[in-house]
Amino acid sequence: MGPHPAVAAIRLAVRRVLHDILNHHHSLAVHGARQAVGARPDRTAERLPSPLVLVACSGGADSMALASALAFEAPKLGIRAGGVTVDHGLQPGSDLRADEVVLRLRELGLAPVESVAVTVGRDGGPEAAARDARYAALDAVAERHGAAAVLLGHTRDDQAETVLLGLARGSGIRSLSGMAAVSGAAGRYRRPFLGLDRQTARKACMVQSLPVWDDPHNADPAYTRSRLRHEGLPALEKALGKGVVEALARTAQLSRDDADALDTWASQAEASVRDAAGLLECAKLYALPSAVRRRILRRAAIEAGAPAGSLFARHIEEVDRLITGWRGQGAINLPGKVVAQRQGGRLVIRQG
Amino acid sequence: MGPHPAVAAIRLAVRRVLHDILNHHHSLAVHGARQAVGARPDRTAERLPSPLVLVACSGGADSMALASALAFEAPKLGIRAGGVTVDHGLQPGSDLRADEVVLRLRELGLAPVESVAVTVGRDGGPEAAARDARYAALDAVAERHGAAAVLLGHTRDDQAETVLLGLARGSGIRSLSGMAAVSGAAGRYRRPFLGLDRQTARKACMVQSLPVWDDPHNADPAYTRSRLRHEGLPALEKALGKGVVEALARTAQLSRDDADALDTWASQAEASVRDAAGLLECAKLYALPSAVRRRILRRAAIEAGAPAGSLFARHIEEVDRLITGWRGQGAINLPGKVVAQRQGGRLVIRQG
Repeated sequence: MGPHPAVAAIRLAVRRVLHDILNHHHSLAVHGARQAVGARPDRTAERLPSPLVLVACSGGADSMALASALAFEAPKLGIRAGGVTVDHGLQPGSDLRADEVVLRLRELGLAPVESVAVTVGRDGGPEAAARDARYAALDAVAERHGAAAVLLGHTRDDQAETVLLGLARGSGIRSLSGMAAVSGAAGRYRRPFLGLDRQTARKACMVQSLPVWDDPHNADPAYTRSRLRHEGLPALEKALGKGVVEALARTAQLSRDDADALDTWASQAEASVRDAAGLLECAKLYALPSAVRRRILRRAAIEAGAPAGSLFARHIEEVDRLITGWRGQGAINLPGKVVAQRQGGRLVIRQG
Repeated sequence: MGPHPAVAAIRLAVRRVLHDILNHHHSLAVHGARQAVGARPDRTAERLPSPLVLVACSGGADSMALASALAFEAPKLGIRAGGVTVDHGLQPGSDLRADEVVLRLRELGLAPVESVAVTVGRDGGPEAAARDARYAALDAVAERHGAAAVLLGHTRDDQAETVLLGLARGSGIRSLSGMAAVSGAAGRYRRPFLGLDRQTARKACMVQSLPVWDDPHNADPAYTRSRLRHEGLPALEKALGKGVVEALARTAQLSRDDADALDTWASQAEASVRDAAGLLECAKLYALPSAVRRRILRRAAIEAGAPAGSLFARHIEEVDRLITGWRGQGAINLPGKVVAQRQGGRLVIRQG
């Protein structure tokens, strides 16, 4: 008798990602060996050290399921499996909680396993600040151990929530594209569960008798994501039908591909709309599709010093009207003391 | 003392659209006159008949507000203002209701005003069938009267709902782009209120003492849009904040521009990936960004006879794997008995 379907599902998802990591790891190593004088490429694979893959684990169901699947699949592929838990220090006793997660990961057979305490700042709100601190800590641990990858337990439900959070910003399709399956420097972060629902992860923990911890933040209505999870999404499902989470996750993937393609187009077009002095020519900008033009304008504003996070669609629309609705407007003030103005058929964007 | 702010807002929105219709109307007429032998272009504007603009009115607050603003603004611009109401015949007494709307529009000073009865079929569900019947009737009335435009009362709230309905399909950014401000053959349909909220339209009716009719369908939980309006969107606003409707409407506009740009790119790229015999070359398709490639595949499937409405993202993904994940797969069946297969480095999509 095979494993429970939920366990089979989480293992398959992890196995696919581990295969991909191995391919990537070997091709990098072979490439490196070929560049070394006198190396024999045909033997490099044998000489490779076994790669290390870490799981980032909060102790919650999603990441505990992920840790269990990693512990099961990694040895079969000659991969070393380790774990890390981040103590955000936001609740009393969070250090004890982190120690407990370390113990559980060790019980699964992972090594090395460690707990890292971080200090959460305030920039960008509580959720963004905790996220920034967490990724900085994970980066540091991965570097220290020379890990080939760090697995994250985000599920399809998390993805759906992220799309809705992006939708609420109203800033275009890039913010609808959710979390990537592969992200970070050199593709360090992997999300094997983006196509699995949260229920499957919970079930897999249950049937494997893995104790899980429910982060009280996840149910705290002070957090936008928590309100979305417990009220917003269920109401949307009631109105639109059960397929909403899947539809949101598919929207993320399609939006990501579309945003990537348009960014590529904007990069290519940008060179062609600058004059010999490097200034943007209004007539040439006008001839571009507005989707491409606005991306070029946004990029120019950021290059001039406008902070990306404060630059909203309405700012870019106003700059765009210097091109599409020119009637002698004055200079336009953008965040970061950046000023955009039209001068002699050129668009000048610079810090004032 | 000027009008109430809500009345000022609806009038401004209509005035802007009427100016645009006039510009369009004159440029068409001048163009036509210049093509006529011996015409004197400088005098054509004087000889133009006064254009007719119709309002489509259900008797509800949005379209009654629209009718009142049209009646106020049109005469000042030398535009004739008429109205039409569609009797869908879905409720007992709907004919009497239509007669009442006709009376109210006449009281506003609109002429011509008429009521058109339609028969609603069943294709695509009750909401789609009613919509199809309605637009066919409006098209016929517009043709008969030679109307320059038909104004529709959709508000920013309707737009937000349309975006969420598109999101639930999970079929990409085109379905997120909502309703266009200008649509239909030769840009016949105009939606002056897409940037105004429903509350403003209601308020404008109230302060002008215009009686309005609440369509019971709008509150009937059997309709998806009604559930969304009364449960889904309020819950989403509670979770994400009051700006959700505005963010959804902005997402619509940005998605529309992005989808248009990518469609343009796909059109241009399509010619370059076909061989001398007109077949799609797999290697050249592979080199395109996936967003562009998938649009070309979708278009090819529709050209081959697949009905657009039955062709989902997952179908196109499967065809795409013939290009990006080729391992000797067999033919793929698509809706409309269309078959896609890879043969000798070419992708063949045709009705089987």
